[in-house]
Amino acid sequence: MTGKLVLHEDPRSLNCYKIRLTAAHLDLTLERRFYDIMKGETRTPEFLANVNANGRIPVLQVGDRFIPESNAASHYLADGSALIPGDPFDHADMLRWMFWEQYNHEPNIATVRAWLTIIGVDALSEAQRLMLPVKREAGEAALALMDRHLAGRTWFVGDSMSLADICLFPYTSVAEGGRFELGRYPAVGAWLERVVAQPNHLPISA
Amino acid sequence: MTGKLVLHEDPRSLNCYKIRLTAAHLDLTLERRFYDIMKGETRTPEFLANVNANGRIPVLQVGDRFIPESNAASHYLADGSALIPGDPFDHADMLRWMFWEQYNHEPNIATVRAWLTIIGVDALSEAQRLMLPVKREAGEAALALMDRHLAGRTWFVGDSMSLADICLFPYTSVAEGGRFELGRYPAVGAWLERVVAQPNHLPISA
Repeated sequence: MTGKLVLHEDPRSLNCYKIRLTAAHLDLTLERRFYDIMKGETRTPEFLANVNANGRIPVLQVGDRFIPESNAASHYLADGSALIPGDPFDHADMLRWMFWEQYNHEPNIATVRAWLTIIGVDALSEAQRLMLPVKREAGEAALALMDRHLAGRTWFVGDSMSLADICLFPYTSVAEGGRFELGRYPAVGAWLERVVAQPNHLPISA
Repeated sequence: MTGKLVLHEDPRSLNCYKIRLTAAHLDLTLERRFYDIMKGETRTPEFLANVNANGRIPVLQVGDRFIPESNAASHYLADGSALIPGDPFDHADMLRWMFWEQYNHEPNIATVRAWLTIIGVDALSEAQRLMLPVKREAGEAALALMDRHLAGRTWFVGDSMSLADICLFPYTSVAEGGRFELGRYPAVGAWLERVVAQPNHLPISA
């Protein structure tokens, strides 16, 4: 690591928590800088010019350079550690689950949860109301895929915990906020417990 | 590389083209196996059991192992090559653009294009009809972000072409099919021309 590490975040975003969880497993200290996304604090001219032109958190600052995108920032922190498999196939397979998380998991499971718990069903737009069952079905399919993959496996990739587990943990662990029933996915439930039982695990609320 | 490389693909999907473009730059030969996604050929019991439980292409087969997710498969092929920066920060920054592509670019630019050119406006569901302007606005924002980033830069990351450029090229190059006006984004247009002018470039139709 070169330069001080600063996490630009809204603690309510579990995409930010991914980076803090990665840092905890690596015994790295992050300075934390807080923004309220609901008040538009990541859309100010200063934020767009200096932190992330895409107007989103989390962003990891390394000295005077910035890495947006939670999974990319976690990859930077974990580079060279046991959280990233050394074997090229396993490395790519880990990235497979991380890309899948951003495309198939987060836009469904995290979004349904946000619509139900932050926005509220009554305040949804007409488009959101029509998308809700579509996203719920896709979220259930994502959990079912994880459950089949984890049956008989300890971790997503190889024989030890990797960034794939760290990046899939946060929104899976709170999926019931979106009324996804985790009891239907026993292998996912057992895997969540394994993640929580790891030395250095950091709770969401920490 | 260990084992024969087979690309399971539908040539109409530009996510598949990403992997073929990566292979072309690396002088690698891929055996191609074709599926018709519109006929459900990636949802058969055989495909789900043997190729990808997620029912999607592309999937890169390496000997008897399989890597779904276009950007992860490209990463496997390019591991150790000049298409992936050796510097850990630049590597993470490349991944940042690849995660951004899957979260902010493809679901908007590629989806709007698919809705207009493959499904057709008149056949859209009510939810899709309501989402169309939302996705169009997000797609324009993605192109604007790329344009600002590329102004004064030759490539997305560092001083040479990387997987970030290869993975962003396909759907950007055909964005006009979704009625995105590339003329409004001159730095994007110049970058598209640079990608096409590279030795070993593979056209979409190849």
